[in-house]
Amino acid sequence: MPKPPPPLLYADTHASADMLYFGRVEVHDPFVAFGAKGKKFTVQSALEFGRVKRTGAFDAVLPREEWMERAKRAFGPGAGIAEMIACLARAHGQKRFRVSPDFPAALYLKLRDLGLKLEFPRGLLFPEREIKTDAECAHIREGNRLAAVGFKVVEEVLRAATIKGRTLVHQGKPLTSERLRFLIEVAIKEQGGDARDTIVAGGDQACDPHERGSGPLRPHELIIVDIFPRHLRSGYYGDMTRTYLKGRPREVQRRLVTTVRAAQLAALRSLRAGVDGRDVHQAVVDTFTEAGYETKRGANGATGFIHGTGHGLGLAVHDPGRLGPVSARVPRGAVLTVEPGLYYPGLGGCRWEDVVQVTATGVKPLSRHPYAWEIR
Amino acid sequence: MPKPPPPLLYADTHASADMLYFGRVEVHDPFVAFGAKGKKFTVQSALEFGRVKRTGAFDAVLPREEWMERAKRAFGPGAGIAEMIACLARAHGQKRFRVSPDFPAALYLKLRDLGLKLEFPRGLLFPEREIKTDAECAHIREGNRLAAVGFKVVEEVLRAATIKGRTLVHQGKPLTSERLRFLIEVAIKEQGGDARDTIVAGGDQACDPHERGSGPLRPHELIIVDIFPRHLRSGYYGDMTRTYLKGRPREVQRRLVTTVRAAQLAALRSLRAGVDGRDVHQAVVDTFTEAGYETKRGANGATGFIHGTGHGLGLAVHDPGRLGPVSARVPRGAVLTVEPGLYYPGLGGCRWEDVVQVTATGVKPLSRHPYAWEIR
Repeated sequence: MPKPPPPLLYADTHASADMLYFGRVEVHDPFVAFGAKGKKFTVQSALEFGRVKRTGAFDAVLPREEWMERAKRAFGPGAGIAEMIACLARAHGQKRFRVSPDFPAALYLKLRDLGLKLEFPRGLLFPEREIKTDAECAHIREGNRLAAVGFKVVEEVLRAATIKGRTLVHQGKPLTSERLRFLIEVAIKEQGGDARDTIVAGGDQACDPHERGSGPLRPHELIIVDIFPRHLRSGYYGDMTRTYLKGRPREVQRRLVTTVRAAQLAALRSLRAGVDGRDVHQAVVDTFTEAGYETKRGANGATGFIHGTGHGLGLAVHDPGRLGPVSARVPRGAVLTVEPGLYYPGLGGCRWEDVVQVTATGVKPLSRHPYAWEIR
Repeated sequence: MPKPPPPLLYADTHASADMLYFGRVEVHDPFVAFGAKGKKFTVQSALEFGRVKRTGAFDAVLPREEWMERAKRAFGPGAGIAEMIACLARAHGQKRFRVSPDFPAALYLKLRDLGLKLEFPRGLLFPEREIKTDAECAHIREGNRLAAVGFKVVEEVLRAATIKGRTLVHQGKPLTSERLRFLIEVAIKEQGGDARDTIVAGGDQACDPHERGSGPLRPHELIIVDIFPRHLRSGYYGDMTRTYLKGRPREVQRRLVTTVRAAQLAALRSLRAGVDGRDVHQAVVDTFTEAGYETKRGANGATGFIHGTGHGLGLAVHDPGRLGPVSARVPRGAVLTVEPGLYYPGLGGCRWEDVVQVTATGVKPLSRHPYAWEIR
């Protein structure tokens, strides 16, 4: 296979984890970065120049003002980003680049008109992004340690809360999703993490897996807590889910929780380098089917097991890699969440989520926290 | 001018404020949305379906699973997003769409091959996004109220801190950028906001305007605090900057601070509907030049006034609209930051930032907090 041409990127690092992976420095407005002759280049305005040069992973940081001037001299006063990139490409002897499928369309067309050859890679822009190094795994572990800090807060608060009829009372007030989310996210912030959109959803709210949850939490109802904090120093994410119930579970709730955990273990047992992600997903589906839990899709949503089994985790919460109904070979070294769940309005939802690195023979856990879910 | 065709979007709402503006609901994986016959449509998987239907602004939410099936029936088992969009377009009698310049290039090319006509708008995908309604201004005010909550924390902490040589001591420990950022962001979180990447940068660190700041804060040094919280219920941002000094300012520091504030007032005086953003920026440049403050750009960065005067603010921190060296007519109803700054290593940096809505005759303030900066 011929060697792919070097990458060309135009994005900000909030929107593009590829850009963050390439340059290792956060910049909040779109900018140019590219490879040439085995080196990494970026173009930065005076506003970002010093910081990017000092903290980024680029071999050279070029001043944007100067290169825009060169583009205007070469192409006239209407020259913009595309013409600047054309100048940079010429100066660095590079006519071909690979670009991500989500490269901006208007810029793509202009660059092609300016004579650059742009190719979409067959797979990822940076295939190596799917395989995590030991250093990356340490950062992800740290992200998950921060998630566990959150679960400890949840457990303390639920233990301390008292049941008054249909209300959970904590520090004299009805305990809400918002309050518990606040306490979780503050504890994580204090330890150098940033958790946003943490899911604290009880009862039927939890049956919409991306519903964050709001209002009073109820006793005797399942509560899903899904925390995906970013470890700020490294930029890597953790992602874990635990399910809780304060009060006395009904037998149907207990069976739901136990079955989801069994499905998680089945998925973990079937996961190793070289397997098809579909088969890992199928292990979950089979566990649920055998236990009699049906999945149904209707006009207004779905019940049962209504999402994939897992996804890649790294510099993005949804990093490359999937365990789901669509075929995808799992490579050695991939880091994936394993997170089966069941959701039935009236009964509630349950999800268990952990993170593992895939090895030749199985998995190495990158998350750690108990599965005790009943809190009296 | 002929009416532009309806919009077509494929993005997640983290990366695309246009998508959030169009659908008014957060979805963290890329999805399809489009207009047809004056109505708004989106396609959602079972995972997001119910939540988007319940809380979004779409006239119709279509089930992704069903439309992918239709695409596979029409185009074969390899059908993907592009083929699904082609089916949707046909079913809705819509062959032409306008797309954002940052529409994903690979999808753009496939859709064109499938016979869709895609056009880039002359300006913004949603030109009305630049003009804020009264409701949007209320949300932005709320964002700025949250920023002011942060400044109150800064002022309390700096007042309470004591000076021990080159150290500021707060609650028995050296006061750091990280600690002050934590206290600011927690206070904002408690009030329903989300502040990230808050800048608390003292001394020379502040001379890199996008450096967040780290380590001990020093007495007698200028400290820039730039807070841009998101008001979580509405999704709109605030964005304000204040500069502080704990201890005794030198005369050169006092002059710097006073000059930057004078520049901010000059910009505000020159701003009204119809002016060129360049002229507002020039008012700042002139104030600095007359006061003898030079701007220099060197190989390793720049000193002086090294950024634009302001930017649009709304569902993104950097919303459409600019006050800077590039010409852009300011429309009535635009919401803009006005944030001149000066940065000189050795002396430090100063920036004042407020937010206004542009009116026919001037500006309406959307941010409010005092400019007292000396804290003894």
